[in-house]
Amino acid sequence: MPDLRQDPIIGRWVIIATERSKRPTDFTRKPDVPRGGFCPLCPGNEDKTPPEVFAIRDAGTRPDTPGWRVRVVPNKFPVLNSLGRLETHTEGLYDKMDGLGSHEIILETPDHTATMSRLSLQDYYTLLLCYRQRILEVKKDGRYRYISIFKNYGKTAGSALEHPNSQLIALPIVPKRTIEELEGSHRYFDEKKRCVYCDIIQQELQTQSRLVHENDAFVAIEPFAPRFPFETWVLPKQHIAAFENTDEALFRPMAEMFSTVFKKIDATLNYPPFNFILHTTPLDSRHEDCYHWHFEITPWLSHLSGFEWGTGFYINPTPPEDAARFLREAEGGRRQSQMHYFDVTHTPGI
Amino acid sequence: MPDLRQDPIIGRWVIIATERSKRPTDFTRKPDVPRGGFCPLCPGNEDKTPPEVFAIRDAGTRPDTPGWRVRVVPNKFPVLNSLGRLETHTEGLYDKMDGLGSHEIILETPDHTATMSRLSLQDYYTLLLCYRQRILEVKKDGRYRYISIFKNYGKTAGSALEHPNSQLIALPIVPKRTIEELEGSHRYFDEKKRCVYCDIIQQELQTQSRLVHENDAFVAIEPFAPRFPFETWVLPKQHIAAFENTDEALFRPMAEMFSTVFKKIDATLNYPPFNFILHTTPLDSRHEDCYHWHFEITPWLSHLSGFEWGTGFYINPTPPEDAARFLREAEGGRRQSQMHYFDVTHTPGI
Repeated sequence: MPDLRQDPIIGRWVIIATERSKRPTDFTRKPDVPRGGFCPLCPGNEDKTPPEVFAIRDAGTRPDTPGWRVRVVPNKFPVLNSLGRLETHTEGLYDKMDGLGSHEIILETPDHTATMSRLSLQDYYTLLLCYRQRILEVKKDGRYRYISIFKNYGKTAGSALEHPNSQLIALPIVPKRTIEELEGSHRYFDEKKRCVYCDIIQQELQTQSRLVHENDAFVAIEPFAPRFPFETWVLPKQHIAAFENTDEALFRPMAEMFSTVFKKIDATLNYPPFNFILHTTPLDSRHEDCYHWHFEITPWLSHLSGFEWGTGFYINPTPPEDAARFLREAEGGRRQSQMHYFDVTHTPGI
Repeated sequence: MPDLRQDPIIGRWVIIATERSKRPTDFTRKPDVPRGGFCPLCPGNEDKTPPEVFAIRDAGTRPDTPGWRVRVVPNKFPVLNSLGRLETHTEGLYDKMDGLGSHEIILETPDHTATMSRLSLQDYYTLLLCYRQRILEVKKDGRYRYISIFKNYGKTAGSALEHPNSQLIALPIVPKRTIEELEGSHRYFDEKKRCVYCDIIQQELQTQSRLVHENDAFVAIEPFAPRFPFETWVLPKQHIAAFENTDEALFRPMAEMFSTVFKKIDATLNYPPFNFILHTTPLDSRHEDCYHWHFEITPWLSHLSGFEWGTGFYINPTPPEDAARFLREAEGGRRQSQMHYFDVTHTPGI
């Protein structure tokens, strides 16, 4: 008998096919790895992009030259731009506004062929701190209400560029999915006076069946009602609403968490295409009590169908308990106690 | 300057890239057409499927033999089944229920290689009446709250079978997307005492810029805030909340509408993969005043990205006004006045 399961935050139901459960080997495909060739984002081609707005670089190297570890540039083809006005106007019964916004590309590493599982702990540490730094900086503009940070890996996941990159989009409105999560977590908080994500973490640590990986400060789980096979959430154990308010001390265990989780995903699913998305609060701060930032990782192992599109009702052929077991058992790199951290040469602001 | 546009029903914002607008030729791909080979759904192989639950057949032919025009069989691998119980139960803070439901395959034509633009008016007429008939029949079960009818065409759109088919899934809950549309249309109705879809139709007929095709009873438009390039909606001009309550007299102009629209889509976009989804009311009837059934057709011309997944905020590179112009100018088959209808030999119930 398949399960119908409800997401406790936004109320979305999914069908979990508990019989005929799909195993990792049922999703066979060629690994999605970079092939190389000329790349305008590689070191040495800094003049092919707009000038950098931020970088973490080796000591003594100049902006827009090689020597960067992480480099942030405005998107040459932004989906939104910063010249628009904030007012909405109407067209009959419709509302619209200028496409005001900011769109940046975050080059994660100088190494064109690096996969997520090959990035070092140091790489993750630098990258995650860079995310925080860019949010803090872009927020100062004052016109934006939400900042989205995400990564598309592989063509199926919507990536147009091969060089390892994340994107930042600042928006003058709060997107629908975020509003749904906020409404759901406010509702839960109003009733129980607790954060729904904190309660989820507590229950998952207790039952263990959907737990993928845990360290002192972070937890990776398969959610109870995932839309996709091997959908994975990473959450800080500590209640923090906004990603940019995360203390720098947490970025080392955060780096360990992502390094381990992506090693497990690549080992289990053979370098799948995926999306990696930060879920955080809008830039106002009215959600401190009830929201809890997290990342959602969604590998793309099969195509969606019209049913999903038509109904917002997903059919997931792999129970999260099975997915969690496969990921738990997969190799995940070194243990935390064996990790070695380097110091970063910070450039402006970190 | 790109546009930010808001869907007037569910409130979703989309980015419409008004500069660098993508034209049909920017979405080059091989046409998605059937290739043939052995097919368990073709006439002569009726014993390869579960026994039919409904068919429209040539006079004198027996069930589960050739001679059908449309044939409905239970899905051999259903995502839900009819044996479950209706109660929800909890698992800590989570809710779940048995995967109760019904899942049918609607074989649209005996012709394995038929594309949507090659189906005759008669084929469309028969198929659309069959949709209505199956909803009326499955509804009698009494345990379901929503019936979804949809078609996936092409592998990218989630189709696993090549033989032209639609699917019906009956659900014990109302899916999220439907709830959002109902909430939005109730909100609009409460304020204005009018159906939001009726108002949309009126405005689109007035402005014409997003109009794709119109006949006496139906209209095809590109919506104001489409998620995807060439997303197309087909609505009855008359206010009807539930598809199954549509009068039989409307099925001839409905057939003409779909025949024309799909000819235009195939001619403009070279047989794209697409989803075709009925949006109708839940099976209770508390939404008669404010909801308005319609079909949404979404061609799959590019991949979604993590931004879309993360935020529910879509980037559409083709303004609907451009898409509508391309489709309006495309060939759409014979004019309505020249159409010739045959009578259908109805088998049970139509």
